[in-house]
Amino acid sequence: MSAPHPALTLTEELIRRPSVSPEDAGCQILIAEHLARLGFHNEPMFFIDTNNLWSVHGSEGPLFVFAGHTDVVPPGPLEKWTTPPFEPHYREGYLFGRGAADMKGSIAAFIVALEQFLQKHPNPKGRIALLITSDEEDKWVNGTVRVVETLMQRGEKLDWCLVGEPSSSERLGDVIKIGRRGSLTGNLIVHGKQGHVAYPQRAVNAIHQALPALDELAQIEWDQGNEHFPPTSLQITRVNGGHANNVIPGEVKVEFNLRFCTEQTADGIQQRVQHLCHRHKLDHQLDWTLSGDPFLTEGGALLDATREAIREVCGIETDATTTGGTSDGRFIAKTGAQVLELGPCNTTIHQINECVRVEELIQLTSLYERILEKLLT
Amino acid sequence: MSAPHPALTLTEELIRRPSVSPEDAGCQILIAEHLARLGFHNEPMFFIDTNNLWSVHGSEGPLFVFAGHTDVVPPGPLEKWTTPPFEPHYREGYLFGRGAADMKGSIAAFIVALEQFLQKHPNPKGRIALLITSDEEDKWVNGTVRVVETLMQRGEKLDWCLVGEPSSSERLGDVIKIGRRGSLTGNLIVHGKQGHVAYPQRAVNAIHQALPALDELAQIEWDQGNEHFPPTSLQITRVNGGHANNVIPGEVKVEFNLRFCTEQTADGIQQRVQHLCHRHKLDHQLDWTLSGDPFLTEGGALLDATREAIREVCGIETDATTTGGTSDGRFIAKTGAQVLELGPCNTTIHQINECVRVEELIQLTSLYERILEKLLT
Ligand SMILES: [Zn+2]
Ligand SMILES: [Zn+2]
Repeated sequence: MSAPHPALTLTEELIRRPSVSPEDAGCQILIAEHLARLGFHNEPMFFIDTNNLWSVHGSEGPLFVFAGHTDVVPPGPLEKWTTPPFEPHYREGYLFGRGAADMKGSIAAFIVALEQFLQKHPNPKGRIALLITSDEEDKWVNGTVRVVETLMQRGEKLDWCLVGEPSSSERLGDVIKIGRRGSLTGNLIVHGKQGHVAYPQRAVNAIHQALPALDELAQIEWDQGNEHFPPTSLQITRVNGGHANNVIPGEVKVEFNLRFCTEQTADGIQQRVQHLCHRHKLDHQLDWTLSGDPFLTEGGALLDATREAIREVCGIETDATTTGGTSDGRFIAKTGAQVLELGPCNTTIHQINECVRVEELIQLTSLYERILEKLLT
Repeated sequence: MSAPHPALTLTEELIRRPSVSPEDAGCQILIAEHLARLGFHNEPMFFIDTNNLWSVHGSEGPLFVFAGHTDVVPPGPLEKWTTPPFEPHYREGYLFGRGAADMKGSIAAFIVALEQFLQKHPNPKGRIALLITSDEEDKWVNGTVRVVETLMQRGEKLDWCLVGEPSSSERLGDVIKIGRRGSLTGNLIVHGKQGHVAYPQRAVNAIHQALPALDELAQIEWDQGNEHFPPTSLQITRVNGGHANNVIPGEVKVEFNLRFCTEQTADGIQQRVQHLCHRHKLDHQLDWTLSGDPFLTEGGALLDATREAIREVCGIETDATTTGGTSDGRFIAKTGAQVLELGPCNTTIHQINECVRVEELIQLTSLYERILEKLLT
């Protein structure tokens, strides 16, 4: 019986640390130890409640970054797990545990790929860094966004960033993400004048006031999307108003979220919605939260290297998409880096009995190593 | 110093009994004692949690009914009352206490008017009854509606009913109610398919589905009202849907209430709304609660007698209206009786420091007595 692959061993060690967001639970110390042995300079960055690690190898040439998170989503009801979520178990070719696929497996693959790569190429043609956070799954406040701010203040230039998010759909490498839509949330309060239902002439029904504007808002066709992005979509996610059967409501609260492509800007969207509210003469209050602008890596050396590596290691052509939710890639893209996401299959992420296929994790390690070779040798 | 008017003394005694709905707190026993002394036959009717009193004088001829309630709305914050709500106090020509105007004063006036009337006319040309409940202010379930059901099952025929609700606006008798709009509530649930905002094509936003239908519903012009009624009005009173910023809501709940005049029927309204929901292809559930059909006493001996009595006792022409909320009159009207409402000014009802003007209560007693004389002698 051969020794287990080192990426599996390291994934097991990470799963044993119950790092429910924003807890890191010692994962980054373990990662930093491995990286120190490889000659990386570790720079922990702690913000408020969040451990982050910025770790760099080398001192000149273009900068390649592996990015990822040690935090995981809560395990949910423990009794539903076949084996405990923070105890790694192997069954039928899969390694089970919270974070196995999202994304402790990818982090282990980063490190083992680096070990193998640096053994073969001790003097690569460029610098290599890891950007590891522990607040990706929940708040997105004290993690990658703060690390990137710090790096940009220093004038640090990132060239290529590979985020280890589980991008694959049915088999490793079949899908990579080359961008993400932006996310913008509006909180609208429409005011009327409360009164008794028996005397409608003395009141202004806030719900009635809001309806025509909301209907128009929901029906806007923002764009058709473009070559790289699906169309912009607005969804009203919450509406709440009124409190008694005989009272005309004086207020209604509405929340809506836009996932927008590069055909829109956050400013443009805000102006259009604001204009719509004014045109409908709503007595209203409207507040916005921008969770992230859209980003896109249309081409370049990183995308070429990744496509080729997938072709060589997995024997398939990858599908470069921009669908799905947001990721920390949006923050890193602000540095001007080429950013893409490549990781294992996402079928079980955030679910009970999360797992990663053993063969897939071994292959992912080779894939990451091959990308390093293509860019840095 | 003269003795206080007996209607004031009796109102005081009723105020001292803290009969917050559906409690009667002994009011009806006191009333029954007075009526027994006048030769009435008392029939207490207790349903579930509610005391009711049906009390009849005489055995032949048309049946005249005084209707009212002993329950009161809660007093609210006690510290805001100048004097305690359940301790009658006189200040500046007013009698203060919870229920002084709505409607313990009217009940006292009923009884004293009957005492005076029967002393002068021991053998009136008809029967006289009192229908007293203690669930008018809250639930409308075990009070007048049940008493009326019982009477109708017996084949009892009510001819004239005077409800003592505080109908007057600025001075006694300036306004009487000759009817009320109906009240109908719809509870609508619109179903969609829940999903993640990043994947709108896999979900159906229940709020988006509902909006065009709700907008149309709110904008329907049901009718122009008629000679006796203000127009029918629909008000959306509650709307609730969605629970997270990144989730497309799979359900939205909407409540609406109609106050409808005699140009509409509850059935007709339900059919029209149902049709609207189907036309908009809503996957929905719609439940209805009919709180009361509209009623109207367009003319007849009761209205004539009341108009004349107001002219003679108060020296003014009354304004016969159908505006405002619902009352137990809607249940009594089902018997086929002519129903109207006449009572003191409603300026302070349901409020802190509720009160009735002393002179008004004395005049109200005379007014009720005069109406009895006009109809039964
Ligand atoms: Zn993740
Ligand atoms: Zn009342």
